Amino acid sequence: MLKRSWIDSANDPEGEFPLNNLPYGVFSTNGTAPRCGVAIGDRVLDVAGAEEAGLTETADLLQYATWNPLMAAGPAAWSAFRERLTDLLAEGAADRAKVEPLLVPLADATMHMPLEVAEYTDFYAGKQHAQNVGTMFRGPENALPPNWLHIPIGYNGRASTVVVSGTDIRRPLGQTKPKDAEMPSFGPCKRLDIELEIGAIVGTPSKMGEPITTARAQDMIFGYVLLNDWSARDLQAWEYQPLGPFQAKAFATSISPWIVTREALAPFAVDTPPREKPLLPYLQADFPGNYDVALSVEMNGHRISTTNMRELYYSAAQQLAHHASSGCAMRTGDLLGSGTISGPEPSNYGSLLEMTWGGENPLDVGGETRTFIEDDDTLTLRGHAQGDGYRVGFGACTGTILPAPEFP
Amino acid sequence: MLKRSWIDSANDPEGEFPLNNLPYGVFSTNGTAPRCGVAIGDRVLDVAGAEEAGLTETADLLQYATWNPLMAAGPAAWSAFRERLTDLLAEGAADRAKVEPLLVPLADATMHMPLEVAEYTDFYAGKQHAQNVGTMFRGPENALPPNWLHIPIGYNGRASTVVVSGTDIRRPLGQTKPKDAEMPSFGPCKRLDIELEIGAIVGTPSKMGEPITTARAQDMIFGYVLLNDWSARDLQAWEYQPLGPFQAKAFATSISPWIVTREALAPFAVDTPPREKPLLPYLQADFPGNYDVALSVEMNGHRISTTNMRELYYSAAQQLAHHASSGCAMRTGDLLGSGTISGPEPSNYGSLLEMTWGGENPLDVGGETRTFIEDDDTLTLRGHAQGDGYRVGFGACTGTILPAPEFP
Repeated sequence: MLKRSWIDSANDPEGEFPLNNLPYGVFSTNGTAPRCGVAIGDRVLDVAGAEEAGLTETADLLQYATWNPLMAAGPAAWSAFRERLTDLLAEGAADRAKVEPLLVPLADATMHMPLEVAEYTDFYAGKQHAQNVGTMFRGPENALPPNWLHIPIGYNGRASTVVVSGTDIRRPLGQTKPKDAEMPSFGPCKRLDIELEIGAIVGTPSKMGEPITTARAQDMIFGYVLLNDWSARDLQAWEYQPLGPFQAKAFATSISPWIVTREALAPFAVDTPPREKPLLPYLQADFPGNYDVALSVEMNGHRISTTNMRELYYSAAQQLAHHASSGCAMRTGDLLGSGTISGPEPSNYGSLLEMTWGGENPLDVGGETRTFIEDDDTLTLRGHAQGDGYRVGFGACTGTILPAPEFP
Repeated sequence: MLKRSWIDSANDPEGEFPLNNLPYGVFSTNGTAPRCGVAIGDRVLDVAGAEEAGLTETADLLQYATWNPLMAAGPAAWSAFRERLTDLLAEGAADRAKVEPLLVPLADATMHMPLEVAEYTDFYAGKQHAQNVGTMFRGPENALPPNWLHIPIGYNGRASTVVVSGTDIRRPLGQTKPKDAEMPSFGPCKRLDIELEIGAIVGTPSKMGEPITTARAQDMIFGYVLLNDWSARDLQAWEYQPLGPFQAKAFATSISPWIVTREALAPFAVDTPPREKPLLPYLQADFPGNYDVALSVEMNGHRISTTNMRELYYSAAQQLAHHASSGCAMRTGDLLGSGTISGPEPSNYGSLLEMTWGGENPLDVGGETRTFIEDDDTLTLRGHAQGDGYRVGFGACTGTILPAPEFP
């Protein structure tokens, strides 16, 4: 049920940022230094300012223009802060007069990276996507790799190019070799794609040499963002054997400006889909670790796909438990991409590769046709959980493609 | 030719740390806080102390117990500092009396990570290794992947578990599935291996969306370390298709305690081996980017392999230029593993997988036999370049395997 706020716009049943949400971002206005902020209705609460004013008990955790210090403080600190925010912003709040001067119109805010990404890992936990891509690359008989139903397959990605929504993305250069060509060539990517994903953010670290259970993994997760794993399909096809995707994914990954906390998503928890093969005990979970979050993709303002986070075969807790299973140390600020979230029909696919079936079936995009992304195209991911009379949203995750650079 | 120092032990023609070397590490003694130090003969020069005493012009770059601040200061600062160190330690140095109190016996020093690893990437630039592994996995006809002679193939690794030499390594847990098993199982790795590599360290960053030439890449490289890319072969075989190695490599990577600078290695520069196919222009280099560095592996004190860095088909500058080619931003502290450096004969192979040919030919190790690593085994990498009357060494890169943890 909607928790009512004294900020009217937060009570809009179709708004993304009611009191039930309270997502965390980093913002600036008019060129001021970036600060930690919380979205509420059509406003941003300057929580760095609230901390300075003694309105929170967060002991300087919010003064670094990144949420990592609070993330490192652990789940009890996360809950206490969220409770305090709720008190400050709920209808009838005692401190309303002190909070009002700390509100900034969301429309005036420039958003920055909400966290310092320690390391970025990308999983492959959407079964329909793995099946679709496998069918295109290896035929329907061998579509799903033999390990897929047993392991949340993932690979390490590149953290240096994770950027906040709104950052323009340069079309990558790279090596490609069409099947009939004698030699590869180097130039702008010709099959530039998106991948619609959710990113889970690790708050609490784990130690090297210490595997973790799925229950502990769940406790370690601070929150979630929308994530677009931009992908250069022609580079990927030529480079990925035998060590996996590298430059095809390294040039950019966009995330939503707002981290929706695990607590805000808790009312929308759902089980992962039924197991087709039993999981090994270290991956089993006795809690619903997935979430019912409606997702969509827009190209140049035209919706081209809708799907739902609940399609993921492995939850973030399962991905994280697997990530640490070898003894790999996990860090505050680790970002785990879910893998592309595709639903059952072409209108539910999470990448252009799938929507156009490898470029064979062009899409209609507002009267124009597209197979892959052209220069100046803008791609936008959106997501929200639907509550009873309210929504919990992430804000748009958007990016515009600029022409490839000249090689120096 | 040997540059003579007033520290006698630095003039030993078989020592690793003459004045020609001056490698950078982080050390502590008797539980004091870690500090930046430089190895010279059988001593460590406390350069944090030298900076405090006004003996260097490094403006507080050396006060952080990591070399990243100097690395970020760029090649001119690197050269100026190295020149100043040479002045302070050369025979007849004017400041000898001020330097003497800053020398600590190397034998008393505990070594720490010399850098903060921003991100870790592992390449696959040794042709003999790629050929050997490919032969075992795919047969001699398809040994070398079709892209291998065109691309310095690499994948993103895990930075959180890069540790300094001397750190004990817990045997990893993980999923494996023997070919004849119906279902996978979870437990301690049974085919634990090393990979003998050299790690290149990026000093100067590059920007997102800005590819770089090999010449610029070369200028960005601060120095080199020995690197042991510990590998769980049974985990790897089951997990690596289609997205590459993940938990099989994520549990640990060991590096030597000393960073040997690019300047110290310059006299040993050699060309990469002849091209078997012409490289695309963005990967071509008109300078010798490889180095003549003798390498060896010891197990429990018994030498089991010798090889040389010059076997690498792609130089670190070529790896780095490729890494940034898509527009991937490179950072101060990025660590690029070369890939396993194997020579032509079994006695020159850089992994147990190759030396024992997949476990078929056990090794004699001081009267015991080994296929893969057993608990309590100690593996040590060594490396040095041989000059005229002097050596430039890295110090040992060593690690002992502890039994696997219990799953919690």
